[in-house]
Amino acid sequence: MSHEKYASVIEVLHECMEACNHCYTSCLQEDNVKEMAECIRLDRECADICAFFEQSLTRDTPYVQELAQLCAKACRDCGEECAKHDHDHCQKCAEACRKCADECEKLVS
Amino acid sequence: MSHEKYASVIEVLHECMEACNHCYTSCLQEDNVKEMAECIRLDRECADICAFFEQSLTRDTPYVQELAQLCAKACRDCGEECAKHDHDHCQKCAEACRKCADECEKLVS
Amino acid sequence: MSHEKYASVIEVLHECMEACNHCYTSCLQEDNVKEMAECIRLDRECADICAFFEQSLTRDTPYVQELAQLCAKACRDCGEECAKHDHDHCQKCAEACRKCADECEKLVS
Amino acid sequence: MSHEKYASVIEVLHECMEACNHCYTSCLQEDNVKEMAECIRLDRECADICAFFEQSLTRDTPYVQELAQLCAKACRDCGEECAKHDHDHCQKCAEACRKCADECEKLVS
Repeated sequence: MSHEKYASVIEVLHECMEACNHCYTSCLQEDNVKEMAECIRLDRECADICAFFEQSLTRDTPYVQELAQLCAKACRDCGEECAKHDHDHCQKCAEACRKCADECEKLVS
Repeated sequence: MSHEKYASVIEVLHECMEACNHCYTSCLQEDNVKEMAECIRLDRECADICAFFEQSLTRDTPYVQELAQLCAKACRDCGEECAKHDHDHCQKCAEACRKCADECEKLVS
Repeated sequence: MSHEKYASVIEVLHECMEACNHCYTSCLQEDNVKEMAECIRLDRECADICAFFEQSLTRDTPYVQELAQLCAKACRDCGEECAKHDHDHCQKCAEACRKCADECEKLVS
Repeated sequence: MSHEKYASVIEVLHECMEACNHCYTSCLQEDNVKEMAECIRLDRECADICAFFEQSLTRDTPYVQELAQLCAKACRDCGEECAKHDHDHCQKCAEACRKCADECEKLVS
């Protein structure tokens, strides 16, 4: 059963989506929002891709490989951008993105 | 912080989305798939609405009331349909939908 | 057939989603991005809700009323925020949002 | 501007999403719904992937290549399954999927 087989990936995707959206809303409230523009943009991309992949896994999608590659790339990009910023939400998001990228890459054969 | 304030609702929404998508893929593989058509249709509606509400809550959406009403209705409908069928995945989905509808209704003031 | 019955609403929802996402990416590149923070946030909310409603209509969702109410509210809010800003993308987005809110309200009985 | 640069792809993605969701709801009402199970499943996958790609293009996603590859594959699979069935909605969906797969493949460098 798909949602059991992929239970740990689904959890990591969920945590990453949450971290990205929390970083997104927090960045929009920072004083230096101008410097956070790319972080905001990649947070949304990454959150949406993680959420899409997460739901796809619960319905046994035939596109695990393609989605894992896409998601790994989005997580790497978002994690690298977040890592540049000192805000606590950015550092936490960078960590969640790295963890998620690692999990996604394990799915790519 | 939105994703902490709504942590328990987010968890229930996630469980309901998973139960609906598992019921959806399982119904499509049943021998009596014809009798499951409405269940399949409502499973998808409910899963998509739960997933949408779940992600919205993690980004501090201003539309909690409207989304909670929509989601409560979709969960009630899907839960009632699922409850009619003896398949284990339908019974489990009915239970997840009832729980989620209850949580959503608590959010509606 | 759902996608024919709702063809004109689907088109307006699509135009509004496009205008919101164009405004969103443009706001993130403006010099005064700090003043655009609420516009960015509501652009994403509105784009996502329009896209969700649009796809739901093409699959004959039973939740037209609830989705139309949600979408009308998101479009009103986003349109009012966009209307405050002189950027061309904001003014165009405000217009698309107003048009979409009007169409959604017609669906609410 | 992303939504102008990709205007023709966005239109084809939209038509494919609509055809898939129309085929999906129609298949669920057919007498031979059991034989349509895989068609229903792939219709949903393809509709969701097209809708996701379509919205991503309107917000200037950095993941055009990856999404185009994913979408081309989903469209090929769905189109091949639909082509096996005589229902008018299946034949129309097969045609929309082929057209969309072709457009997506043009984006893959």
